[in-house]
Amino acid sequence: ISSLRLYGGNMDGRCTHAVLLLLCLGSCLSLTPPAQPFVRQEKASGLGSNSSKGGLSLDVPMALRVFSVDYYHVQAPFEIVLWIMLASLAKLGFHWSGRLPAVVPESCLLIMVGLLVGGVIYGVRHSAPPTLSADAFFLFLLPPIVLDAGYFLPGKLFFENLGTILWYAVLGTLWNVLGIGVCLYGVCLLASGSLGDVSLLHCLLFSSLIAAVDPVAVLSVFQEIHVNEQLHILVFGESLLNDAVTVVLYKLFESFLRLPVVTGVDVLLGGCRVLGVGLGGLGVGLFFGLVAALTSRFTSRAQVIAPLFVFLYSYLSYLTSEMLHLSGIMAIVTCAVTMKQYVEANLSERSNTSIQYFLKMWSSVSETLIFIFLGVSTIQDVHMWSWAFVCSTLLLCLLWRATGVILLTAVVNKVRRNVVTFRDQFIIAYGGLRGAICFSLVFLIDDFPKKRLFITTTIVVILFTVFVQGMTIKPLVELLEVKRRKRNLPTVSEEIHSRLLDHLLAGIEDVVGYWGQHYWKDKFEQFNQRYLCRFLIREERQARSSIVRVYQELERRDERADEEHITQLDSNLLSSLLSSMLFNSPCLFSHFLF
Amino acid sequence: ISSLRLYGGNMDGRCTHAVLLLLCLGSCLSLTPPAQPFVRQEKASGLGSNSSKGGLSLDVPMALRVFSVDYYHVQAPFEIVLWIMLASLAKLGFHWSGRLPAVVPESCLLIMVGLLVGGVIYGVRHSAPPTLSADAFFLFLLPPIVLDAGYFLPGKLFFENLGTILWYAVLGTLWNVLGIGVCLYGVCLLASGSLGDVSLLHCLLFSSLIAAVDPVAVLSVFQEIHVNEQLHILVFGESLLNDAVTVVLYKLFESFLRLPVVTGVDVLLGGCRVLGVGLGGLGVGLFFGLVAALTSRFTSRAQVIAPLFVFLYSYLSYLTSEMLHLSGIMAIVTCAVTMKQYVEANLSERSNTSIQYFLKMWSSVSETLIFIFLGVSTIQDVHMWSWAFVCSTLLLCLLWRATGVILLTAVVNKVRRNVVTFRDQFIIAYGGLRGAICFSLVFLIDDFPKKRLFITTTIVVILFTVFVQGMTIKPLVELLEVKRRKRNLPTVSEEIHSRLLDHLLAGIEDVVGYWGQHYWKDKFEQFNQRYLCRFLIREERQARSSIVRVYQELERRDERADEEHITQLDSNLLSSLLSSMLFNSPCLFSHFLF
Repeated sequence: ISSLRLYGGNMDGRCTHAVLLLLCLGSCLSLTPPAQPFVRQEKASGLGSNSSKGGLSLDVPMALRVFSVDYYHVQAPFEIVLWIMLASLAKLGFHWSGRLPAVVPESCLLIMVGLLVGGVIYGVRHSAPPTLSADAFFLFLLPPIVLDAGYFLPGKLFFENLGTILWYAVLGTLWNVLGIGVCLYGVCLLASGSLGDVSLLHCLLFSSLIAAVDPVAVLSVFQEIHVNEQLHILVFGESLLNDAVTVVLYKLFESFLRLPVVTGVDVLLGGCRVLGVGLGGLGVGLFFGLVAALTSRFTSRAQVIAPLFVFLYSYLSYLTSEMLHLSGIMAIVTCAVTMKQYVEANLSERSNTSIQYFLKMWSSVSETLIFIFLGVSTIQDVHMWSWAFVCSTLLLCLLWRATGVILLTAVVNKVRRNVVTFRDQFIIAYGGLRGAICFSLVFLIDDFPKKRLFITTTIVVILFTVFVQGMTIKPLVELLEVKRRKRNLPTVSEEIHSRLLDHLLAGIEDVVGYWGQHYWKDKFEQFNQRYLCRFLIREERQARSSIVRVYQELERRDERADEEHITQLDSNLLSSLLSSMLFNSPCLFSHFLF
Repeated sequence: ISSLRLYGGNMDGRCTHAVLLLLCLGSCLSLTPPAQPFVRQEKASGLGSNSSKGGLSLDVPMALRVFSVDYYHVQAPFEIVLWIMLASLAKLGFHWSGRLPAVVPESCLLIMVGLLVGGVIYGVRHSAPPTLSADAFFLFLLPPIVLDAGYFLPGKLFFENLGTILWYAVLGTLWNVLGIGVCLYGVCLLASGSLGDVSLLHCLLFSSLIAAVDPVAVLSVFQEIHVNEQLHILVFGESLLNDAVTVVLYKLFESFLRLPVVTGVDVLLGGCRVLGVGLGGLGVGLFFGLVAALTSRFTSRAQVIAPLFVFLYSYLSYLTSEMLHLSGIMAIVTCAVTMKQYVEANLSERSNTSIQYFLKMWSSVSETLIFIFLGVSTIQDVHMWSWAFVCSTLLLCLLWRATGVILLTAVVNKVRRNVVTFRDQFIIAYGGLRGAICFSLVFLIDDFPKKRLFITTTIVVILFTVFVQGMTIKPLVELLEVKRRKRNLPTVSEEIHSRLLDHLLAGIEDVVGYWGQHYWKDKFEQFNQRYLCRFLIREERQARSSIVRVYQELERRDERADEEHITQLDSNLLSSLLSSMLFNSPCLFSHFLF
C-alpha cells in the first residue's frame, strides 16, 4: 500500500509508466515460457540451434516464416539489461521529481519500487519472484560499490582515524556478535516451546551476520545527511573493515556447525583465521594495487585501454581474495587506495575523468539494483514469523550496538586528541544500518528447520534499519546539532597551514624520540617519493615541477567547477598535491617555515 | 614457429612474461580441476555451498583449515577477467614496442598471440583449447565494436555515399554469394571422388558466410592505412550494411537445407525477408535511438548514470533485433547514429568524454579478444583438408569480389558526381577482409560430413585475408599512390564554404524542381531543428546561442589538442556544429552569402 501511495504522490508519471512497461515486458517474456509454444518451435530454425540438433528433422517447421521470434537466444543479457534499465529509470524518476529524495532516502524509495515490482510479478505468476542470488551479489554487485568507495576514500582522514576505526570494527563487531548471539539463545531457551530447536551455534551464526554493518546502506544514507568528515569516516570505515570480522565469524560458526565436535584447537584456529583473513586481503590488495600502478606507467601509447586496467586489477584482487577465502572487501579497498595516486599521475586528465565517471556510474547502478532486489526478494513464500524472535533480535541489535559504541568510545577517547563527543556516539550507534550483505549471507545458511525464521528476521531488521533509522537520522542530526561538513573545500592557505603543522609535529616527534603517527606518515611519504613514485610513475610526469602541477590542477579544478560536478570527486586531490609540493620543493617549505 | 619468432624479435620481454604467467595461471587453474581434490573437498565448507548440500555430512572436512581455496566459486568471472587481461596486456605490449605495429597490423599480431596461447594450452592438456562460442561472439563481443563504429560514423560522408554503399552491400554481396556458391558446386562436381556429397545448397550456405566482408577486420586494418575518407567509408559502410544481406542469405539457405522440398513460394518469402530484416533492423534502431535521446533529456539531475543509457538502449536495440531475427548490426548502428547528436547536446562535456572513452575502450577490448580467440580457436582437432576445395574457395573469393567491384562501379560511376577511380576500385576489392563473423557462422552450421572441411576453409580464408591482404595493403596503397586522408581537420573557413555550397545546391535543386540529395538533406535538417531538437534536447541547451556554442566547442577542442588524443574522436563534431550554427542564425548565413 505504501508503495502504491508513493507512485500516486510522485510527479513523474512518465517514468512510472516506463518502469511498468518494462516490467510487464520482462515478466511476460521471461516468466511464462511454456505458454508460448511457437517460440519453442522457432528455436529449431533460429541461429541458436547449433550443435545438439544436428541432422534431426523431427521438430523442423514445414514452411518458412518471414517473421519469427527467438527469445531464448538472447534471454540472459536481455533480462539483465531490462533490470538495469528498470533500476536506472527508477533512479532517474526520483531525481527528476526533486522533492521526494529530500525527505525519503533513495534506498527506501528503491526498496519500495522493488516491493511493488515483486508484488506485480507475484500477482502475475502466483509464485515468488526471482531473488538476488548470493553469487550475483558477492561477485558482481558488491565489488563496484566497494571499489568506488575505496577509490574515493579520503586517505588522510582515514589513516588518521584508522586506530579508532579498527577498534570499532574488530572489538565492536565481536562484542555485538557474542552479545546478540548469547542473548538470542537465552530468548530461544525461554520460548522453548516454539524455538527449542535453535542451538547456541545457530544463534551465533545468525548474530554474526545480523551484526554486520553494511557499507552500501551506510554510504547511501550518509551521502545525503552531510555530517562532518570525521564522523562520516568513523561510521563508513567501520562498515568497510568489519567485513573481515563478520565474514570470518560467519564461516567459522558455519564450519563449527558441520563439525562433529568443536575442540579448543578449532577455536584457536578460528582466531588465527580472523587475523589471516584481514591481513591476507590487505596483502592481496597491496600486491594488485602496485601491479596496477606499474602497468599504468606503460599505458602512454595505448591511452584508450588505460582505464580498463584500474577495473581489471581491482576486480582481480577481489576475486583472488574470494577464491582464497580472504576478505574481498579489504582487498579491493586496499588495491584502490594503493593504486590511486600513481594511476592518477600516469594517466591523462581525460582518462582519469572516465575512470571517475565510470566508477560512480557502476557503483550507482549496483547500489540501485541491490536495493530494488532487496525489495523484490522480500516478496516470498518462505517466511516464518515469531514475535519473540523477531522483536528480541531487533531490540538486541539496537541495545548491544549502543552499549558497544559507548564502552569502546570511553576507552578510545582516553587516547584520541580530539574526542568523539556524545552526539557523535549516538550517530555512530544509530547509523549502524544493515543491508544486502546480511541478506545474502542468510540465504547461504545450510537448511535447518528455522532457516525461514532467520530469513524473515533478517529482512525485518534490514527494513527497520533502512526505513526507520535511515529516515529519522537526518532530522536527528539536525535536532542534535551534530557538526556538519564544511560546504567549501579548504582554501590553499588553510591546506598549507595544516600541512605545515603536520610536518612540524613530525619534526617534533622525531626530535623527542616518540614514534607517533606523524613520524610514520612522514617516513612513508619520503619512502614513497624516493622509491615508489620513481618506479611507478612515468618519467615525464615525475620530472614536471610540482609547483607547475599544482597550478595546473587548480586551473582544471576551476574549470571543472563551472560544470555540473560529480559528488565527492576529488576531495583529497588537493591535499595530496600540496603534500607532494611541500616535499618536492624544500625551498618553498623553508620559505613557509622561516 | 612464426609466433615464437614474433616473441623473440619483440622488445618487451616484460609483457611476454606477464602474458605467459597469466596464461599458465589460467590454464593450470581452469584446465586441471580433477587433479586438485582438496579444492573439491573444500567446496563443502566454502561460501559456495548453499543449497544442495544442506544437512549432508558425508564430504565434510573433519578439521578446520586456516587456509583454503575455492576456485569454482569465482571461476567464470575470474577466467573472463584473465582473458581480458591477456588481451589488454598483449595490446599494451605491441604499442609499447613501437616499431612492430608500423609493419604488421595489430590484428595479425593478435592472431599470432592467439595461436601461441592455443598451442600452449593444447600442449598442456592435449586437447583443443576453448573456442569462441557463437553466442559469446554475437551477444557480447560484436555489439561494442559496432556501437563504437556507429557512434563515430562520419554522418555526412556516409549519407552522401549511401547509394553507392547500398549498391555494393546488396548487389555486390548477392553477386559474390551466388557466384562463389555455384562455382564451388562445380568444383565439388569435378572432384566428385572426395567432395561428391556436398550439395548445391551446402555450397550456397558456405558461400553466403564466406562472402561476408567483416567490419571488425576492415576497421582494424583501415584505421592504420589512412586512405581518403571517401574510400574508407565505401569499404567500411559496405562491411556494415552487408550484414543484413549475408545473415539473411545464410539463414535462408539454412532453412532450405532443413525443408523437405523448396518451392517457389519459399524463395519469394526469402526475398521478402532480405528486405524485412534490413528495414526491421533500421526501424528497431530508430525507435531505441529516439527513446534514448528522449531519456537523455531528463538526466540533468542524475548526471552520474547518464552515460549508462547510451549503452543500455543501444544494446537493447541489438538484442531486440537479434530476438526478432532482424539485423542487429543495422539496428545498433542506426540507434547510435540517431541518438548521437541529441545525447551530445543533452549531456555535460565530462559525460560525453566518458561515453567516448568507454566506447573506444570497450570496442578495443572486444576487437582484441576476437582476434586472439580467432588464433586460439584455430588450434583444433576438427580440421579436414582438401587442396581442391580450399584453394578454389580462396581463388573464387578474390575473383568474384574483383569482378563484382569492377562491374558495379562501372554502373555506379555513371550516376556519381565524383567517380570511383580504378585505384579506389582495387583497394575496395582488395580490402574485402573476412573475419570473426564468418568464423562464428560456420560453427553454427548443422552437422554434416563436410562441416569440418568448411571450418578449415573458413579459417584459411580468414587468415589469408587478414595476413596476406592485411599486411600488403599498406605498401600497395603507397605504391598505387591512392589519395590519402588529409592530416588536419578542415579549417573553419573551409567548413563554412563547403556548407555554403551545400545550401546553395539545395536552393538550386528547390528552384529547378529536382528533388536530389541536397533537397532532402535540407528538408530533414529543417524538420530536425523545428521538431526533433525541440522535443529531444533540454531547453537550456536549446536556448543557448549557437555562436556561443561553436565558440565554446572550439575552445574545448584547442584545450583537448594539447592532451594525448583519442583517434577519430570527433571528426564530425565541428561540421555538425557549423551546420546548426548556419541554421540557427539566418543573419550570419546571409552575412556570408551577400
